[in-house]
Amino acid sequence: MTNTTTTDTVTTTAAADAGRIAAYAAPAPGAPLERTTVPRRALGAHDILIDIHYAGICHSDIHQVGEEWGAGIFPMVPGHEIAGVVAAVGAGVTRWSAGDRVGVGCFVDSCRECDNCRAGLQQYCTGEGGVVFTYNDRGRDGAPTYGGYARQLVVDERYALRIPDALALDTAAPLLCAGVTVYSPLTRWGAGPGRKVAVVGLGGLGHLGVKIARAKGAEVTVLSQSLRKREDGLRLGAHDYRATSDPATFTELAGHFDLVVNTVSADLDLTAYLGLLRTDGTLVQLGAPEKPVGVNAHALLTGRRSLAGSMIGGLPETQEMLDFCAEHGIGAEIELIGADRINEAYERVLRSDVRYRFVIDASTI
Amino acid sequence: MTNTTTTDTVTTTAAADAGRIAAYAAPAPGAPLERTTVPRRALGAHDILIDIHYAGICHSDIHQVGEEWGAGIFPMVPGHEIAGVVAAVGAGVTRWSAGDRVGVGCFVDSCRECDNCRAGLQQYCTGEGGVVFTYNDRGRDGAPTYGGYARQLVVDERYALRIPDALALDTAAPLLCAGVTVYSPLTRWGAGPGRKVAVVGLGGLGHLGVKIARAKGAEVTVLSQSLRKREDGLRLGAHDYRATSDPATFTELAGHFDLVVNTVSADLDLTAYLGLLRTDGTLVQLGAPEKPVGVNAHALLTGRRSLAGSMIGGLPETQEMLDFCAEHGIGAEIELIGADRINEAYERVLRSDVRYRFVIDASTI
Repeated sequence: MTNTTTTDTVTTTAAADAGRIAAYAAPAPGAPLERTTVPRRALGAHDILIDIHYAGICHSDIHQVGEEWGAGIFPMVPGHEIAGVVAAVGAGVTRWSAGDRVGVGCFVDSCRECDNCRAGLQQYCTGEGGVVFTYNDRGRDGAPTYGGYARQLVVDERYALRIPDALALDTAAPLLCAGVTVYSPLTRWGAGPGRKVAVVGLGGLGHLGVKIARAKGAEVTVLSQSLRKREDGLRLGAHDYRATSDPATFTELAGHFDLVVNTVSADLDLTAYLGLLRTDGTLVQLGAPEKPVGVNAHALLTGRRSLAGSMIGGLPETQEMLDFCAEHGIGAEIELIGADRINEAYERVLRSDVRYRFVIDASTI
Repeated sequence: MTNTTTTDTVTTTAAADAGRIAAYAAPAPGAPLERTTVPRRALGAHDILIDIHYAGICHSDIHQVGEEWGAGIFPMVPGHEIAGVVAAVGAGVTRWSAGDRVGVGCFVDSCRECDNCRAGLQQYCTGEGGVVFTYNDRGRDGAPTYGGYARQLVVDERYALRIPDALALDTAAPLLCAGVTVYSPLTRWGAGPGRKVAVVGLGGLGHLGVKIARAKGAEVTVLSQSLRKREDGLRLGAHDYRATSDPATFTELAGHFDLVVNTVSADLDLTAYLGLLRTDGTLVQLGAPEKPVGVNAHALLTGRRSLAGSMIGGLPETQEMLDFCAEHGIGAEIELIGADRINEAYERVLRSDVRYRFVIDASTI
């Protein structure tokens, strides 16, 4: 068992099993995931042990297993959309008790001292070492982090979120990444009554974007390649649904939106999308294409428009998002799978063949 | 004399001279400017006749004479940094009297009915025909517009600005375009006490950006290719002055600024400049390079940064800027020239050999 933390540790019965947990991991870059065990650190004074119930499959899991974003740490246990129940708490834990329903998102630590951390924007931590991602990263102790495709997780109590009772754990899991990734820009750029919002792409992020933007009171339009998912989009709350393959969409909706939230990582003609914005409107990128994005500066100048980026959300905002979703009855639309179908699910995600998020039943791991 | 306006007109003695005014014009694309006369419309009920005293030379004048922004209307009388005195007013004019000190900027008409016009953002007019630029455009009557390199100008009273007595007309002229072009983004993105602002490029726009940002209370840094103008920059109000040719600038100032105002139209590595922004910071483009600008979306995502554009300013904001400059004793640093030196001045502007704005003494036209 690896334990190089410097904080006091306590032993709990739950931390037994020689400190290893069952998980699904990619043993090497691009390799299929397989059942294995990975080390779990002993419970530190401020740690909690979570029995994972569900873990969402995020497209970024596939990117990282495939090393599309740079060298990975293997074996890699992906998963940063984690919902479960507290099984045990460290001696100094004050926020949680066994039995609490909790979630963990994209990160499990940060410096806690930089301006961003103090402002609750841990995802933009600029401290030494920066934010520690939930998997494919190394903690302050140097040990690799392993994600949510596992039976259990040990995490500092400050990096867990409360999942309100009104939310089912399975449909709540994707909120921890996909949900907050759309909630944060919709909040920051003022989606609400009287504001016209477009959500580009109706996938894992997009379908939650539609639900959340609608719940915030905005007028919501889905911009999707085709009209194939139109009925779904309208059912989820969109007021309008347009095909971006139809050039008329860009002429008819020119200068229409206050906010366009782009959930698509593929190369799009962003200049065309900027043209959909009203004066002072913002186009927000949630994904990063591999190549630099090109825009015609004229499209920014004429209308004082902005092209912005946004990456997940901080801890306070993630909790706010969970509470908002509980209040408005919002969960992800999911396809629940056993762990033995993870590799098949990856194939289907790559084909955009999922409505709208795969969630792994962790009891099958 | 061309008079195709449909409004009532009145004849004034100043409108004599067969309705033609002395001006400097480019007779054809890219040709040197020469003295000529151009038609002037008769004074409509809501028009004022301005005796032009001074006209600034803006880099965009050179772009348009050279047809770099598309086909031009020739002969072309450039000039949209105009300062003068009201010589006569139409029968229905209520805002102005003969003798008033007035300025005219980049546009002389707009639809007055669209959301942007109603919000005082005439520069982004989305109405039929859009904004009418001061020169190289056609008015609602179809007649070409002629700019400020001339002895006189007839303009609708609503599109003139009051130049406060505290401002000299010669150093005020460049405020009408260069001044408001930097004032507007500095205002919109909150340059003020406690905010760190970088001004990229110390030219016609940049030197006014430094003065205005400093007067607004921001901490101001100039980012210039070299340290050649460092002393000037500090004298104008910058707290710091860095060379962008030195890679250390980009590492030492990483994550430093709330706002970076880019006055340079040339291709810059905008991803590098985005890296200078703090969380939620904005990089504002004031010029449009000919080619699309490319940015790495990661630089937007990590820190929720924005790349924005801003184009001049609306009428209320232009007046606000003039009043602000009067209050703070801000004028452009100028080199006053006779009209016979316009072509030489163009050459020098292209070599960045001007500190910091050429202004034409219109009495020499």
